Amino acid sequence: MKCLKCGRPAVFHMRHHKLALCEIHYPEWFVKQTERAIQKYRMFDPGARVLIAVSGGKDSLALWDVLMGLGYAVHGLYIDLGIDWRHKGGIDYSSVSREKVVQFAATRPEARFTVVDVAAEYGESMPQAAQRIRRGRDKPCSICGLIKRHVMNRVARDGDYDVLVTGHNLDDEAAALFGNVLHWKTGYLARQAPVLPAQGEGLVRKAKPFCRLYERETAAYTLIAGIDYVYAECPYAIGATSLRYKETLSQMEHQAPGTKLQFYLGFLRARKEAFFRERAEGVTLTPCHNCGQPSSAPDLCAFCRLWER
Amino acid sequence: MKCLKCGRPAVFHMRHHKLALCEIHYPEWFVKQTERAIQKYRMFDPGARVLIAVSGGKDSLALWDVLMGLGYAVHGLYIDLGIDWRHKGGIDYSSVSREKVVQFAATRPEARFTVVDVAAEYGESMPQAAQRIRRGRDKPCSICGLIKRHVMNRVARDGDYDVLVTGHNLDDEAAALFGNVLHWKTGYLARQAPVLPAQGEGLVRKAKPFCRLYERETAAYTLIAGIDYVYAECPYAIGATSLRYKETLSQMEHQAPGTKLQFYLGFLRARKEAFFRERAEGVTLTPCHNCGQPSSAPDLCAFCRLWER
Repeated sequence: MKCLKCGRPAVFHMRHHKLALCEIHYPEWFVKQTERAIQKYRMFDPGARVLIAVSGGKDSLALWDVLMGLGYAVHGLYIDLGIDWRHKGGIDYSSVSREKVVQFAATRPEARFTVVDVAAEYGESMPQAAQRIRRGRDKPCSICGLIKRHVMNRVARDGDYDVLVTGHNLDDEAAALFGNVLHWKTGYLARQAPVLPAQGEGLVRKAKPFCRLYERETAAYTLIAGIDYVYAECPYAIGATSLRYKETLSQMEHQAPGTKLQFYLGFLRARKEAFFRERAEGVTLTPCHNCGQPSSAPDLCAFCRLWER
Repeated sequence: MKCLKCGRPAVFHMRHHKLALCEIHYPEWFVKQTERAIQKYRMFDPGARVLIAVSGGKDSLALWDVLMGLGYAVHGLYIDLGIDWRHKGGIDYSSVSREKVVQFAATRPEARFTVVDVAAEYGESMPQAAQRIRRGRDKPCSICGLIKRHVMNRVARDGDYDVLVTGHNLDDEAAALFGNVLHWKTGYLARQAPVLPAQGEGLVRKAKPFCRLYERETAAYTLIAGIDYVYAECPYAIGATSLRYKETLSQMEHQAPGTKLQFYLGFLRARKEAFFRERAEGVTLTPCHNCGQPSSAPDLCAFCRLWER
């Protein structure tokens, strides 16, 4: 197969776009797609101060790379959750991930980032807090999400950033949408979007520039761009429902290329046409009495309740 | 496993309901579920004149059986579409199906039904009409649906029936919903419901009393009730997208029993809470100049355009 732009051997073929590109034109296309999404969904302006949440995985490192290449003022945030599976014969996941972020930044003079060590700042790692709260009944994923959302918003507010970006790709967004639709989580459906505007002073603006790019497209970019990242899934994610949904969607994508993209874009269209009522509007947020971040609870936010003994 | 009601050996186990029943209590439960759906969704009153579309398959024959058993005034309608695959080494599908309907009615003195032979009444069988219109480009399923909807509504109107019922089961409804959601067919989503009220004089009321019952539940009922039916799928349905969706949903059901039921009931809840805007309301229907049935087209309805040369 040949590159559609220059006729040289193609390195990557996208069946859903009927498009094959070479190692020069694929990264070009990928960067342009990212920029288009930023503009189309009015995610942020060229002069914006951007905070990017980086996990050490392929998506966030690729996004960081692309945003710096496009000339955005972007600062990294790595949240060390203290996930360590050496006692179960696994890897020290958080340390390995952190090292990938450090290595990535070391090869790019303009890359700057902040590390928030959850155990050091709050007295317990994420797994310790989850163990205390849930007593091992469930996966810690919901508590992990709560901690990450809180810390990301705190750092973005404290640093006066205009927008917080994450590396969520199309596969992530389609799987989340799939779960929300299967259970008709109407509140989540109303709020799932490529960009979430700031809410008052409290909640910073959020954007997902990779929301229309397939996971294999970000993987191909990191390969060609020579970005090293943590390959392993988070050990707690093994068997997670979201991974099952990803598998199901990938099967359907295989049978009908473009399924994920159509599913997600069709949803955005239905959303834009106000097919859904904006249920999210009805929620009143007040500042948490402890940390000051907005919360739907009357006194302490869920994050601060987490650390209460 | 034992019957939850009487302790005798169970013949059927429903994982999603954590319920196992014997050959006496399963049919009882099945009939009660059907009656509950009729009442819950206010499908029709005890004294209603009911027209049931019967295909010769398990669902419509089971529904006919249950409705007669419950004492409803129900009349059958078999539409002979002229589907015959003997030239391809298959079966004379429409004749075999018709024979199942005839046999079923022969063993029930109160069963009465009407046959509409499409080729005899309109000059061409469904496959012939589809071949002429689509020239073999596509499956004839959409034209088949158009013909069935027209004939069902015509017979229901001419016979002054209060409601038209079909044997659509949960698997059918969940698969249709799945397809509508994957492509965000918002118009179809707004109109997918267990009961569709009549629209003016033109469109008769429609109801699906089996919409909360799994396909394997109707299959188990026919087995225990000794109802013989056509086992084969319609030869044109092989490879249809709706069958792919059914497979995907069945895989998910296997991994998480109750998936289909939750998906469908969650949708009905979201629908009831007016989560969706009622887009269907915006469509204006006027009588077709030829047949008088309501149509969104200004002069001839799609059915009458089908037979225009």
